[in-house]
Amino acid sequence: MAREITGFSNPLVKRVRSLREKKFRKAEGLFLAEGLRILTEAREEGVLPEMLFHAGSTHPLAAELIAAMEAAGGDVIETSADILSKISGKDNAQAVVGVYRDRLTPLDALDRTTADIWIVAQSLRDPGNLGTILRTGDAVGAGGLILIDDCVDPFSVESVRASMGALFTQTITQARWPEFMTWLRAGPGELIGTSLKATHDYQEPRYQSPSFLLVGNEAQGLPEAYEAECDLLVKMPMLGKADSLNAAVATAVMAYELLNQKRKR
Amino acid sequence: MAREITGFSNPLVKRVRSLREKKFRKAEGLFLAEGLRILTEAREEGVLPEMLFHAGSTHPLAAELIAAMEAAGGDVIETSADILSKISGKDNAQAVVGVYRDRLTPLDALDRTTADIWIVAQSLRDPGNLGTILRTGDAVGAGGLILIDDCVDPFSVESVRASMGALFTQTITQARWPEFMTWLRAGPGELIGTSLKATHDYQEPRYQSPSFLLVGNEAQGLPEAYEAECDLLVKMPMLGKADSLNAAVATAVMAYELLNQKRKR
Repeated sequence: MAREITGFSNPLVKRVRSLREKKFRKAEGLFLAEGLRILTEAREEGVLPEMLFHAGSTHPLAAELIAAMEAAGGDVIETSADILSKISGKDNAQAVVGVYRDRLTPLDALDRTTADIWIVAQSLRDPGNLGTILRTGDAVGAGGLILIDDCVDPFSVESVRASMGALFTQTITQARWPEFMTWLRAGPGELIGTSLKATHDYQEPRYQSPSFLLVGNEAQGLPEAYEAECDLLVKMPMLGKADSLNAAVATAVMAYELLNQKRKR
Repeated sequence: MAREITGFSNPLVKRVRSLREKKFRKAEGLFLAEGLRILTEAREEGVLPEMLFHAGSTHPLAAELIAAMEAAGGDVIETSADILSKISGKDNAQAVVGVYRDRLTPLDALDRTTADIWIVAQSLRDPGNLGTILRTGDAVGAGGLILIDDCVDPFSVESVRASMGALFTQTITQARWPEFMTWLRAGPGELIGTSLKATHDYQEPRYQSPSFLLVGNEAQGLPEAYEAECDLLVKMPMLGKADSLNAAVATAVMAYELLNQKRKR
């Protein structure tokens, strides 16, 4: 269904704009993604939005998106650049905005044998870090991201943006710690934590597949009780004055070490 | 000199608050840093602010900062938590805010023999990435960060915050590309670019010291002409759908490879 919206006070514009807030995302089970690059990556993964807003873009990728939506009977809404800006909250709106259904995979539905690397993040606070970790997960061929305890919403506009589309290629799972540990120990998998208290350098162990790379909160790191349940605790060399790396950076350095070991076998 | 300010409309409060904008930072040659952790890291490097604002903090680190300022004859201003929030632009203000003199090192003053790794960033746009790269540079023992062409201001509040104090431990230099290349070629040093077009995996070369790791703009990567002047062009394995990593992540993965090779020798 194709239609046109020209009024700022249109109820649908208001409703879609409200998805920039977590409580409305949660209530509706929907989130926003912006830009041809991210929406095209989603389409290539076979994921189309529930609604597609565009401002009469003539870009070939926009035309492909619109055609795919129409073939699937999706909702395509043409509107003005100003209304797109209002929806996305950015001065220079992207050419397209999609409204997507939440993409959470239940823990029990994860098949750990499909990947050598899984990333597990605990109480992550920064949406940019979360999105960047998804992007890194995609790059190292991770199976997905498991969010433990109270992490920031993976479907926030900032997280979706930082993921650069990886939100659609990585599975995303939410679980409490005891539930995750029960699931983890019911099958193969090595739980690797990074810790300032670790005595092993991160390049020392020969990591076993599947690896579950556990990353802690930006300010506090991992709780001691969680560290105690890890199979391995490792640390990266820190030659300077600082005692830690940015959480997304630490995840990437560890994830590439895992990948490098696995690709050498 | 210790004094107290209680009024929101005090001219000094307005002047300091204006340092959140680049044009005022540039005009005054000053910038803001917030929080006991970052200000203490600066103090441990021997760097004190021109002015220190605090809201009557009783934290021992605040007391040490105030004592160091008083010993150096610096300007210590006690104010309210509300005024500190106004200065820093955050709802929960940090306990201390410092006003520091710009810390740019001229290219000619850099001594490349003091470190094995130098990071060079070209037209970097995101202040969080810039600060995170400084933090990574500190961790790998880099000599400093050389900013090429039109990078985001390294002294913005977001960059200072993301650097977690590394702004005070890393030298920061700004240069145009031709000027940088003239300086680089006048001494030892291997220029390493990361590029999607590279044919060499990043773990293949044996890197020579000092290494100059060149990182491009977040959206465009490096200009072709700059890539052509690199001694080595390498790429990281990308197993997923995305064709690039976040700029700060790519820098860290490469920087740790350089460090790992150098520490094994």
